[in-house]
Order: sequence, then C-alpha cells, then structure tokens
Amino acid sequence: MNGANALMRTLVDHRVDVCFMNPGTSEMHFVAALDQVQSMHSVLALFEGVATGAADGYARMAGRPAATLLHLGPGLGNGLANLHNARRARSPVVNIVGDHATGHRRYDAQLQSDIETVARNVSSFVRSASSTVDLGGDACAAISASVGPPGGVATLILPADISWSEGASPGRCSQPDQRATRGAPPDPERVLAAARALRSGEPTAVLVGGRALVGTALEQASDLAAATGARLLAETFPARLERGAGRPPVERLAYLAEFTAMQLEGVRHLVLLDARSPVSFFAYPGKPSDLVPSDCEVHQVAGPSDDAEEVVAALVAELGVAVGKGSRQQAIRTDLPTGVLDAQAVSQALGALLPEGAVVSDEGNTSGLFAPSGTAGSPPHDWLCLTGGAIGQGLPVAVGAAVACPDRPVVALESDGSSLYTLQAWWTMAREELDVTTILLNNGSYAVLKMELDRVGADPPGPRAKAMLDLGGPPLDFVQLARGMGIHAARADSAETFSRELARAFATPGPSVVEAIVPPLL
Amino acid sequence: MNGANALMRTLVDHRVDVCFMNPGTSEMHFVAALDQVQSMHSVLALFEGVATGAADGYARMAGRPAATLLHLGPGLGNGLANLHNARRARSPVVNIVGDHATGHRRYDAQLQSDIETVARNVSSFVRSASSTVDLGGDACAAISASVGPPGGVATLILPADISWSEGASPGRCSQPDQRATRGAPPDPERVLAAARALRSGEPTAVLVGGRALVGTALEQASDLAAATGARLLAETFPARLERGAGRPPVERLAYLAEFTAMQLEGVRHLVLLDARSPVSFFAYPGKPSDLVPSDCEVHQVAGPSDDAEEVVAALVAELGVAVGKGSRQQAIRTDLPTGVLDAQAVSQALGALLPEGAVVSDEGNTSGLFAPSGTAGSPPHDWLCLTGGAIGQGLPVAVGAAVACPDRPVVALESDGSSLYTLQAWWTMAREELDVTTILLNNGSYAVLKMELDRVGADPPGPRAKAMLDLGGPPLDFVQLARGMGIHAARADSAETFSRELARAFATPGPSVVEAIVPPLL
Repeated sequence: MNGANALMRTLVDHRVDVCFMNPGTSEMHFVAALDQVQSMHSVLALFEGVATGAADGYARMAGRPAATLLHLGPGLGNGLANLHNARRARSPVVNIVGDHATGHRRYDAQLQSDIETVARNVSSFVRSASSTVDLGGDACAAISASVGPPGGVATLILPADISWSEGASPGRCSQPDQRATRGAPPDPERVLAAARALRSGEPTAVLVGGRALVGTALEQASDLAAATGARLLAETFPARLERGAGRPPVERLAYLAEFTAMQLEGVRHLVLLDARSPVSFFAYPGKPSDLVPSDCEVHQVAGPSDDAEEVVAALVAELGVAVGKGSRQQAIRTDLPTGVLDAQAVSQALGALLPEGAVVSDEGNTSGLFAPSGTAGSPPHDWLCLTGGAIGQGLPVAVGAAVACPDRPVVALESDGSSLYTLQAWWTMAREELDVTTILLNNGSYAVLKMELDRVGADPPGPRAKAMLDLGGPPLDFVQLARGMGIHAARADSAETFSRELARAFATPGPSVVEAIVPPLL
Repeated sequence: MNGANALMRTLVDHRVDVCFMNPGTSEMHFVAALDQVQSMHSVLALFEGVATGAADGYARMAGRPAATLLHLGPGLGNGLANLHNARRARSPVVNIVGDHATGHRRYDAQLQSDIETVARNVSSFVRSASSTVDLGGDACAAISASVGPPGGVATLILPADISWSEGASPGRCSQPDQRATRGAPPDPERVLAAARALRSGEPTAVLVGGRALVGTALEQASDLAAATGARLLAETFPARLERGAGRPPVERLAYLAEFTAMQLEGVRHLVLLDARSPVSFFAYPGKPSDLVPSDCEVHQVAGPSDDAEEVVAALVAELGVAVGKGSRQQAIRTDLPTGVLDAQAVSQALGALLPEGAVVSDEGNTSGLFAPSGTAGSPPHDWLCLTGGAIGQGLPVAVGAAVACPDRPVVALESDGSSLYTLQAWWTMAREELDVTTILLNNGSYAVLKMELDRVGADPPGPRAKAMLDLGGPPLDFVQLARGMGIHAARADSAETFSRELARAFATPGPSVVEAIVPPLL
C-alpha cells in the first residue's frame, strides 16, 4: 500500500472522513486514493481559504476534525487566514499540506518554500512526514493533536515521495481516553475561588466562552448567574453559541471597546468560564487594551484545556444552585418588516423567518449588527462567529457547517467586502448542493473601516482616504456573481422583496443568495 | 508629522509612488495620509493576493518597486502566494504589513499572530518598525533592500502606534550607487570559462533568464549564440521576456521535464546568463530532478546579483562577436482562425490581433500552450510568466503591468481554474479603468492536473479522483462573474466569434473579458 492510501485509511478509520481540498501535482496520489477509500468524502474548493474555513465550520458543528488538502507553501498561504480563525476557534483540523518529494527539495524548484515556518503560525502541531512506513503513525499523531484539548490545527506536511512510495500501512491510533479528550477535570481551588466571588454580594459577571456556550454548560452557567445575581455575558466572537427560544439568553461582549467598558462598568469579579479575559480588538490612541475594570478581580475557572461542562457543574454543585432555574428565552417572532430595506429590516425578516435548527455563520459586520437581537426569540439555532477577526470566514464556515449538518438549514449572514475574500465558496455550495442561504448585505463600502478611520483618531479623512473604503465604483453585482458560480440568486431593495426572497430561499433546498441592498449603517 | 505621513513621504520621495492596498483598522493612519501625500497613487484591491501580484507586475514593467499595504498576519497570508511569485521573479516590492500597536501585542487579541515568520518565507528583508522617529530610516532600508540586487520583497511591519505617533520625519535615503544597483560587474574568470565553452566546438546552449531577457542583453545573447553556433534558450517561466517581430526569437525550456530533456539532449556545455540550472518543476517517481545531461558542464556566468547586461557585453567582447548579427524574428501575422474554437484557434487569433507594444500576462496553462508560437511574429511585445508556479498570478500581474504602463495594452491570458484564486482583480481593473483584455480560457477543468495525475504514476484514476479535477459541475460562467465585478464581457464558442470579440476588446479602451469556451487540450 502506498503512503497516500495508508494516510487516507488512517483518517477514515478514525472518523476523519471529510476532506476539503484544493490539490496540485504533489497531491495527486492522495487524490487518486479517493477511489480506493470510498468512505472519504472529498469536497473540492476553488481556493484554499474556502477549504480551511470549511474545515473550521465542519469542526465547530461536527465536534471532530475534517482534513484539508493544500498544495505546498503558496496553498498554505492562501489557507492561512481561515486557519488563523480555526486556531482562535480551537477547532480541530487535520491540515495536510503537500510538499515536493524529499529528494527534490534541494533543487529549490519554483514552488519550493519553507512550509513549516508558515504552518507554525497557526498550528499546535507541525510534522513533516519523513518515511512512508511511519506515515500511518504520523496521521495518528496529527489526529490526536488536533483533537486536543485544546483543539487546534495539526499540520501534516506530506512530501510527494512519502505519499507515492509503497510499504505503508494504516495507522492504529491508540484509543483516545474519553475523559482526557474532554479536558482536565475541575480544579477545586479555582472552583472555590470563583464560588467565593459569586457569593460575595459584590457585582459579579460570568463571562462564558469556548465550549461552555453550548448544551448543559451554557444552561448551568445561566442557572448559576440567576441564582447568584451575577451578570451573564458571552465572549464577543464565540466559535459556536446555542441560542433562540427555550435557551439561556446571553448578552455578548461588544466589539467596540467603548461599549464593552459600559458592559463591565462596576463589575468587581469576573468569572471566566472557558473565556479569555476581555481585551480590545484593536488598540486605539490613549485607550486601554485591557478591558477589565481596574478594581475588578478576574477568576479563570475553566480554560481551553479544561472540561468546561464539568467545571460549570462543579461550580453549580459547590454553590448548591438549583438547575433549570436560570432564565430561558421566550419564543418571540419578529414581525416581517415593511418599507425601506436597511440593516434593521434585514434582522427583522431574519428573526421572523429563521427556520428551526438553523446554523448561522455570521460575518455580517456592521450591517449584521442587529441580527442577534432580531433572532433572539426565533426557534433554537446555532450562531458561529468570526473568531479570529480574519475576514473571509463566513461563506467557508457555512460550507463546512452544511457538510457537517446536512439536515439543518444553514444561513450565511455575509457582507459585501468580506464576501469577496472567499466568494469561491458559492461554487462549492452549488456543487455539493448544500442547503445554505446567503444573505449578502451590500452597503457598497468597507463600512466598519469608515468607523475605524474615525475611531483611531486619524486626521479627518479626505476624499482620497475615503475612496479606499468605498466599494461602489464600480458597484458589485452579487446576483451576477452568484449566478456565475452556478447558484440561484435574487436582489432585494425593499423590505417586502427581501422577506419574500428570504422565505423562498429557506423553502427551497440547496444554496441560494439573497442580495440585500442596504444603506451603510454608519 | 506622524509615522504614517513620514513613511508615505519617504516612499514617494524615492519614486515608490504606487501602493496596492487592502487595508484594515491598524492601517487607517496610513490610509488617512493619502490626503496629505497626493503624489501617492493608491490602488484598492478586494483581496490581498491581488495587491501583492499587482506589485509584482508593476515591478516587472516599471523596473522599480511599488508598495503594498496589508492587514496583519492574515492579510499577509492572503498575499503570500503572489509574494512567492514576486520573490521568484526577483521583483522589488516594498511590502508594508500593518500590525497591532506595540503595547497591544501582549494581550494576544484576536488578530494577533507571528507576522515575521510568515514574512521571512518570501522576503529578503524583514523589519518590524520599533520607533516612530526611526520609521523614515526603516523605509529607506526597505526600499534599498527591495531594489537589490537581486531585487526582492522587503517587508516592513508597521505597528499601529508607530504609525499614529508624532515625531517622525521623512527618511533621506542615501543616493543609491547606480553601478551597484545594476549588479556586480563581470567576473573575468567566469567570462573566460564561458568563452572557452562557446569556442569549444562542442554542442553548447546558452540559457538566458532574469534580466538578460530584455533589451541589449537579450540581443547580444542572441548575437553570441549565432556567432558561436550555440543554441539559444530561455528559462521556462521568465519574469519578463521581450519578444515579437524584430526581436531575437528564443525558445523557452519546456515545463514538462520530458521535453526539457529533449531540448538539452547532447548539450555538452550550458552557459547560464542570469538563469538557474534547469530542474524539474515537480519530482516524478523514478525520474531525475536535475535536467542537465550527465556529461554537460554548466557555466554560471551571470547570476541574480550580477549586472547581466554587462556580463553579456563582456562575453561578446571576449569572443569578438559582431553585434546585431544574431537572428531576429520576422514580422508574421497568423491568419484569423475559422470554425472550431480550441486552444490553437485562440493562439492564432491572438497572434493575428495582438496590438503593438502589448504586455501579455500569461497564466494560460495547458490552454495557453500554443500562445507563444502563435504570437512569435506579432508586433513587439512583452511576455510575463508564472515565475513561482503559485497560481492566481495572471490577473493581478496584469493589473500591476497596466498601472506601470498606462499607454500600453495589457493582455491577461488566463485559464478558468487559475483565475478563480484572484478573480477580484477584475474589479480593480474596472475601478482603475485599466486597459486589460482578459482572454479567459474555459475548459471546465484543472486540465494540467489531469495530465499530472497520469504523469506522477498514480493508479489509473477512478471517477472520484477525476471529479476533483473537474470544474464543470456546475459550470462557471465567467461572463456573469466579470459583469458582477463591473467589467464588460462576452463569450465565444466559435473561432469567428472569438476573433470578433477579441478585436473589439483590443479596440476599446478599458478592461474587458472574452471568455473562450475550449475543449481540454489533454
């Protein structure tokens, strides 16, 4: 058996059975192995950032890694931004990067580059396979490293000759210790310290993030907050947040530091449940980066390597909190909007129509700002955010979520500027017939940067600076772009048209795009 | 004066007066400086790979660096593939990557990453600015490093606070030594050794590359070959090759190692004029990577740091070659094709219609294979190739070439699969009203990989492997994609239609796309 075959078999034997790929010559043996290993589901992307973002979205929803297949250093470069987001989401990804044959490297051929240093930037594990015989074992090491905890990007560099040579056999990975995979058990001291804070009577907030924003952990965190009078907050950009009717309502920390400061004002204890201590997204002249009030004590009770669910349960037990008593969101549908189509009308229509069980990949940016409030009382759904701030995540993550959850409707809440980084995702949606509805918020500008240009204290912007944030000349026509990639699309410039097209998209299986022409919010 | 202003002034004071940008929050002060420094021509790209590829194309045609402006590590990642190509082209690029404010880094905010290690991969110079006062000097160092010789990517990492703080002044770069900038003077011993080889009477080939493929160097290399009976060859993927009627005809080394072997068969001396010793693009099982015949002696007479023109002149003088006696290409226009539209008909139409002084950015891959022969006798023009093999170069390089040469028609010979990596370049062409005609060769597949799948000796490919190389489901509609980005487009599926649309595109100023539906060549 050649290396490629053994590698692919090792992957599928250990439930890594989806591969998002954009292969080149050095990966051809791996591609050829697809006909030997029928249980590997391979999904072609036209750009590597689509493949890596899809692997991230898949991991967030499936809870286990997909593989990627990228072509040498430049392919890894193209995939890097969404691997950065995956790293911040702590998504397990088995990131396979083809390389020249080992004997070919010394010739410094055109495509030769230093793959390892680029990969290290985003990977918790990097290994360049050096022997076909050991490749199965390398695959096991990569799978195990990706799963964590904490989950991460495990990069396996695959030289072409290691892939094509014979003598390999599938790796027999050691059975993962389920307990260890879920993370470290609660640390009694940290639990006690947090419990003391929650009992202190002083203003306390519980900041929930990571794996504590789903299932029992989220419910119990809510119970905890209700019982102790603490404020319940979620990190700004969760990898996956369960929300909607019947679920605990959680206020997310704001993107803008000014608003975060208001949210945290007066808080004396901040209990972190799998969340990081809040810092400003960017730095601004004369403003602090650390957003924790100066007289507030931070209690990190569960971190990325901990079993968040167990930690929350331990805290609940320590405090004697009655479970199921926390606040739960009422089912409230917004009314369909009428008249002018703007960011608020879009969120209202989305709230009115969002199907039960939907997965929302949110890269709506400024135009998507009202969407969380509009959908707060919609039927239960998941919300996936821009974890690492590297734009171009939304559509690829939607691809991955749809592959992971073929029976759930997926919504990509996407903005014009951001969509253009990885628009090729639409073609993969069409090819795989994924049930993804893209709401393309077209305000003709990099609106978030208009705001930032002001916030960073730059000189009052002149026309030449403003032109760099303007996407209106020429205007982008997303209906044509979508159709060019084989996907159904319609444009809406009134609230009624938008609602009608959105309803039609939700009612029709397969992908579609609804372009919403909206005025810039700012 | 703040850092951003001083940096921009330093750039324009030293003729780096074009900046291809895709900025984010941390770059807002640099953007704001555009209204203070009116002589900086800023060109907005919707994706970083467009910006970096455009800087490469600009440098190839202008002979001096443009600047880029990228947003942190993920922005650099998105630009990496075309920086790789720029590195291989030895194009001078001042690559400015914004970073978090220095004091913000320790908070490991969402977008924090290790920019330097990623940049090193493609850069001959990397510096992270550490003081606003020194920023002008940093800019001088980056400009100087980019110019070389050899030219290269000089990455200047620009933390936001270094950019926004006051106290900067424009750098006064030391006047570059013109002699030194052109490269090292000829090495007498190497010249003598090469002259001996060329006089030996044994089969000899002169392989020309780099800066020796234009102007006097190319003409004299041709004279040299004619006078000594040596074979004249060019490297496979030149950064810039001057060709067409009246110019020395040069046969390029083939991409496929099998053909290169035929081209070099029997050669006993290989004289390298600013070219690298030929190696296989990829490795293949059981085939050599080094393509130099075993009994052939290689004479590296000019390398990347040498003054190629001077070296060729020295060799000409040493051999007493009469200049201007080498072969020159006759003016021959192909006839317009009729009937079926295929790769050959496209090349025939291009040869018949190519405007004088055109710049051709060639990423036609398999479908573009005949284009060089079809245009051999067309009016003088320049040919820019995929130097580093990282696809997605063609359209961005065309953008940069058009900005560098506003009075020359630019042709992007582009293929379907490759175009999809950096298709956003079309929008920049439309926005800047660049006179670029894209010939989009749509064969519905990654045809080069179909060939490679066979060549790498993989198992006979089954349907699942073949599906990964098929772009037909759904078919991409490049006319709609182009229109979606605000660019005029037409489709041709017969030779007559193609010729008519191509003639119309050449006759019309500004950008346009002609999509040629062609059968896969292989």
